[in-house]
Amino acid sequence: MIQKLIKKIKEKDAPVVVGLDPTLSLIPDVIKEKAFAKYGETLEGAAAAVLEFNKEIVDAIYDIVPAIKPQIAMYEQFGVPGVQAFYDTVKYCQQKGLIVIGDVKRGDIGSTSAAYAAAHLGSIKIGDSKWEPFAEDFATVNPYLGSDGVRPFIDVCKANNKGIFILVKTSNPSSNEFQDRLIDGRPLYEWVGEKVAEWGEGALNGDYSLVGAVVGATYPEMGKVLRNIMPKAYILVPGYGAQGGKGADLVHFFNKDGLGAIVNSSRGIIGAWQQEKYTHFGEKNYAHAARAAVIDMIEDIRNALLQKTGIND
Amino acid sequence: MIQKLIKKIKEKDAPVVVGLDPTLSLIPDVIKEKAFAKYGETLEGAAAAVLEFNKEIVDAIYDIVPAIKPQIAMYEQFGVPGVQAFYDTVKYCQQKGLIVIGDVKRGDIGSTSAAYAAAHLGSIKIGDSKWEPFAEDFATVNPYLGSDGVRPFIDVCKANNKGIFILVKTSNPSSNEFQDRLIDGRPLYEWVGEKVAEWGEGALNGDYSLVGAVVGATYPEMGKVLRNIMPKAYILVPGYGAQGGKGADLVHFFNKDGLGAIVNSSRGIIGAWQQEKYTHFGEKNYAHAARAAVIDMIEDIRNALLQKTGIND
Repeated sequence: MIQKLIKKIKEKDAPVVVGLDPTLSLIPDVIKEKAFAKYGETLEGAAAAVLEFNKEIVDAIYDIVPAIKPQIAMYEQFGVPGVQAFYDTVKYCQQKGLIVIGDVKRGDIGSTSAAYAAAHLGSIKIGDSKWEPFAEDFATVNPYLGSDGVRPFIDVCKANNKGIFILVKTSNPSSNEFQDRLIDGRPLYEWVGEKVAEWGEGALNGDYSLVGAVVGATYPEMGKVLRNIMPKAYILVPGYGAQGGKGADLVHFFNKDGLGAIVNSSRGIIGAWQQEKYTHFGEKNYAHAARAAVIDMIEDIRNALLQKTGIND
Repeated sequence: MIQKLIKKIKEKDAPVVVGLDPTLSLIPDVIKEKAFAKYGETLEGAAAAVLEFNKEIVDAIYDIVPAIKPQIAMYEQFGVPGVQAFYDTVKYCQQKGLIVIGDVKRGDIGSTSAAYAAAHLGSIKIGDSKWEPFAEDFATVNPYLGSDGVRPFIDVCKANNKGIFILVKTSNPSSNEFQDRLIDGRPLYEWVGEKVAEWGEGALNGDYSLVGAVVGATYPEMGKVLRNIMPKAYILVPGYGAQGGKGADLVHFFNKDGLGAIVNSSRGIIGAWQQEKYTHFGEKNYAHAARAAVIDMIEDIRNALLQKTGIND
């Protein structure tokens, strides 16, 4: 699956992923009104608005991005109908040829992680039938419980050609509290990074591993160190845009082959219509605003990478 | 909510919680056959079997336990119908007067944690209406992202009188890999425990805090240390029974008031009918086997606590 992702990144010449993390405040009134008219101001109504919003954005950008990353929390907040909208979003994106990274940050003791892995990346046997409950292509995983909480995900990845991104250094301000604490002179995130490299060795798929990492764009210097520690791990880089990360910060996350990282932006894209730079699109054309923001993001990152490789004109 | 939990623990004289973590292999054939006859060997069929299984167990034990802890992974593995069964299980338990601890181990950056907190412990505004998506009473939370990933949960707990249990030292074998690493001479789990105490100070509810901790029964010596570091945190103690923890290991997790901890058993209870000690109940009477296993567990813990306080006869 990591090779499939790389192929799509090359095809689109765009190492980016768009986070479909809808909150009601990001959804234009016209969509909400239509959904509420049909389902009322209910969880069903909100979920219908979310799905409609997502579809229009996906329709507007699917030809220029390789992947979509729905954050499941934004769907769980609308209860069971919200989780159905998550499922429908995953399916819709895949039908459009997009790779789906389920941002679920699951992680638990072994038998429970096995259930999460089956849910999000694998299949479950029911009687003589086999079902794929959510069937994302990648999922994010929390490492706090150690190897036996992570390995069930890797086993499922290997069996089904899927992938994971393990939280190493997260983009938020207080990620320093535990992740930066020194252990034998080196921060915890480096030790986690070493484990990611170790776990990934047994799950190679071409030059890269099915086991990737999450490292926030907001910490470029740490990205540089982690890039070296985990040479075969694809790095999912959140924190670009709304959280403050810029193109120039991102070059450290890439390998010399120009690969090795995929940069996420969520609110910066799906909420573009509310930003000064894109308000001229108007509320109804929020999906076109999203497309313009994606194009700007891709250009920003391409420029940064060209400057890094020194072949800029 | 922690006072409500304490009240129920005292009423039942049972500091225990039963984990409703159903896998298909724990569910008697007769229940599965009935569900599959109605819904086919589908996710819906599995979810129906799970809910039926849960209800019968709850009916058999609700008068002797204060709380139930459904592990959401075991429901997510059955897709959207499984998540519906999770919701229905939460509701059913609450209707029976039980406190529900949603074992969801969520945790993310601030805005995302806020969505998870709303989903599981709070409410969401949709137009002029307010909905409680899953409405558990407590939830478990992963601390890897630090304060800004945890505080949104605490805010929701304070606003809605709910509670959380933060992973400190988990019960699994490889929890040592990161959690036991020494930082300034002390293991990471102690630093997390200190944060739990600090976060909990602002969320007191009587003598205890709405902010509790998870510490595995499998690490009693660490439980002793953590008990002192977090005197006002209720400790949720998994790992009893199937994972190897015994009553005598548990005394360190309690305070001198006989409170401060609640011990979980999952497979040991709901899968009791498959254990040699309880097979005489027969497959159809799996719920009675579960009740017998709960009674044995409560007795084991009561005896251990009596020996600790020295008032055993």
